[in-house]
Amino acid sequence: MTEFNFDEAVASLRKRHSDLLSRKNVLDESFSNGIFRRYKYPVVTGEHTPLEWRYDFNPATNPFLEERMGIHSAFNSGAIIYDGKVCLAVRLEGNDRKSFFAIAESDNGVDNFKFRKFPIEMPDNGNPETNVYDMRLTRHEDGWIYGVFCSERKDPTAAPGDLSSAVAQCGIARTKDLDLWERLPDIVSESPQQRNVVLHPEFVNGKYAFYTRPQDGFIDAGSGGGIGFALCDDITRPVLGRELIIDRREYHTVKEVKNGAGATPIKTPKGWLHIAHGVRGCASGLRYVLYAFMTALDDPSQKIASPGGFFLAPHGTEYVGDTMNCVFCNGAVALDDGRLLVYYGASDTNLCVAETTVGRMVDYCLHTPEDGLYTSRCLAARMDLIRANYALPDVRKHNLEM
Amino acid sequence: MTEFNFDEAVASLRKRHSDLLSRKNVLDESFSNGIFRRYKYPVVTGEHTPLEWRYDFNPATNPFLEERMGIHSAFNSGAIIYDGKVCLAVRLEGNDRKSFFAIAESDNGVDNFKFRKFPIEMPDNGNPETNVYDMRLTRHEDGWIYGVFCSERKDPTAAPGDLSSAVAQCGIARTKDLDLWERLPDIVSESPQQRNVVLHPEFVNGKYAFYTRPQDGFIDAGSGGGIGFALCDDITRPVLGRELIIDRREYHTVKEVKNGAGATPIKTPKGWLHIAHGVRGCASGLRYVLYAFMTALDDPSQKIASPGGFFLAPHGTEYVGDTMNCVFCNGAVALDDGRLLVYYGASDTNLCVAETTVGRMVDYCLHTPEDGLYTSRCLAARMDLIRANYALPDVRKHNLEM
Repeated sequence: MTEFNFDEAVASLRKRHSDLLSRKNVLDESFSNGIFRRYKYPVVTGEHTPLEWRYDFNPATNPFLEERMGIHSAFNSGAIIYDGKVCLAVRLEGNDRKSFFAIAESDNGVDNFKFRKFPIEMPDNGNPETNVYDMRLTRHEDGWIYGVFCSERKDPTAAPGDLSSAVAQCGIARTKDLDLWERLPDIVSESPQQRNVVLHPEFVNGKYAFYTRPQDGFIDAGSGGGIGFALCDDITRPVLGRELIIDRREYHTVKEVKNGAGATPIKTPKGWLHIAHGVRGCASGLRYVLYAFMTALDDPSQKIASPGGFFLAPHGTEYVGDTMNCVFCNGAVALDDGRLLVYYGASDTNLCVAETTVGRMVDYCLHTPEDGLYTSRCLAARMDLIRANYALPDVRKHNLEM
Repeated sequence: MTEFNFDEAVASLRKRHSDLLSRKNVLDESFSNGIFRRYKYPVVTGEHTPLEWRYDFNPATNPFLEERMGIHSAFNSGAIIYDGKVCLAVRLEGNDRKSFFAIAESDNGVDNFKFRKFPIEMPDNGNPETNVYDMRLTRHEDGWIYGVFCSERKDPTAAPGDLSSAVAQCGIARTKDLDLWERLPDIVSESPQQRNVVLHPEFVNGKYAFYTRPQDGFIDAGSGGGIGFALCDDITRPVLGRELIIDRREYHTVKEVKNGAGATPIKTPKGWLHIAHGVRGCASGLRYVLYAFMTALDDPSQKIASPGGFFLAPHGTEYVGDTMNCVFCNGAVALDDGRLLVYYGASDTNLCVAETTVGRMVDYCLHTPEDGLYTSRCLAARMDLIRANYALPDVRKHNLEM
């Protein structure tokens, strides 16, 4: 074997990293549906994290320049515009399976994301969690930026030998600069498990409003499930009132097994736009897709549009990762020019972006038929579309020329 | 259709096979972590097996030159240096789902593996198994080469209609030449199921020493699990003494659901190097990764190093195969020049190789932080690394120049 040269190895490692970070993203021409565009490369991966977070650069203690603390995935990320940049609160997962958060920033939101110098040191609230993940960022009208995330601990009631049962609760922290975070008490609700909680950006009837996801077990929705909505008087003592289910699970839909709120709702002229996730079972496990719906501007608990089926499902390489067949969104940002960037984790491994506009998404929500729930009804809606198309002179002309 | 020419078809088939067998392997430049390198191509696949094992070459009985008995996968393989060559006891699986063993040999261990003329005809011991697989090869100081493998039969107590429940036990055979095998009685232990057993290459207190994996069910570890260690007086009547758990499962680690010994331990100046596998659940099923640990030279049941997280997880195309999201190792060889070749099955389909050195692996084991088990503790260890890096003059200089 040739002798190992530490300095050369550092130079090679740095070059590889800087090439990745400066790579320009391009639209993925292999996909089009008029609703959104995909970009070819994930916007953030584990390899985007600073090398200093993973390697020990001291030749005395790391003579082979080994990765000491790998970060193998970067996915489900909260998103916000801060200081003119798209800022993501990225879920990073170490090779040890424990997640933590870090802020990555980009001028255009589709490439050149750079992490801040340090990860977020999220304070715990006296009962340290085994894992934290899937932070939603909400710029609230009270002036704070909130991070609402899942806080997970081993189930103390698990049978001996059951090392998997966990309790998921909702942690809350707030910040002004995305660096320093003040941890608030975890949300108190009547559900034994609480994941996928999202804070609404405005007061509702003078109160803080949360989208919730009550369920019985860590994985199983049980008799519960659906996206809930609940109010809370004091976010520093976040005890939720009654959870009203505003979007329920349904048999043989994309949200048969479970569903949950995703990105912090986007305010549009026609209502609040929600990008949520739905889960169904299949022979190879669970399948996670994104779907959309809208609620009323004057009452964000009132659903006003519910396009049937998924909005975005795994495509190409997105299918493959640490958890297969899974896309998950917990952040989207509306830009001043009308574009909407939807960030979604692909199979719990990489963070991808879909680009659309607020106008297109509203059109999609208001004019996509609802799920007919029965194949004949779904097909009848499609036949209406087909017949209407064939009645159009331009379509007729096109088909005659074919 | 053009007429089928048998001789041309044979020539084409033989060329394709010989091209595959003589293909040079190259390092995979898409991956680097300073710990190991991947090679671009699997070292052995089902297509590497001799054509005579799969096709009938008699035009009278096989006029279309059809594959009569397909072998669709080649994976989890024991490994040993024999007669100056790397010899693998490959698990081959026929299209009928039954596995068997065959020896493949290569001069350099990374390409040009060729199978011996015949597969291993493993004698049974009076109670024929439905399946045999995952052989560990151990060159023992008693002078024999042992093959220790899983021997699986239908569970006689399974409910009618349950055609999946099985009993896994540990088969043992020994050889001097890897061709002729003497079958010994199966291991007798107190565990109702016994898979992933590995024979230690040296006597321990004058006895044979086995790494075991006691568990309650065929798939479920139940209240059991963890890597055990047990001694046995007489390998020709292998009744195990008490199984001491030397590496246990833990909540929210890469070995939450189960774990098991992998490659026969490698003796290093600092201790015995173990490459094991860990399993966790996720929404798309189980996820198998490799992890490493070391035990003391003078007491191989005593863990002395336990780097946190995985050592090697599925990457790229390795994610996809008959069993997704799975890497599994049951063989590694240390070469005279210090290199260590780690053979691992990728998703129960192909056999891949990772190249490292014994020195790097020892450094990895001794200097990678242990799993902190809580996100805050894991992050604290990472923050120590980050701060130490930023304090280094070269890192400072680099970051100033950015």
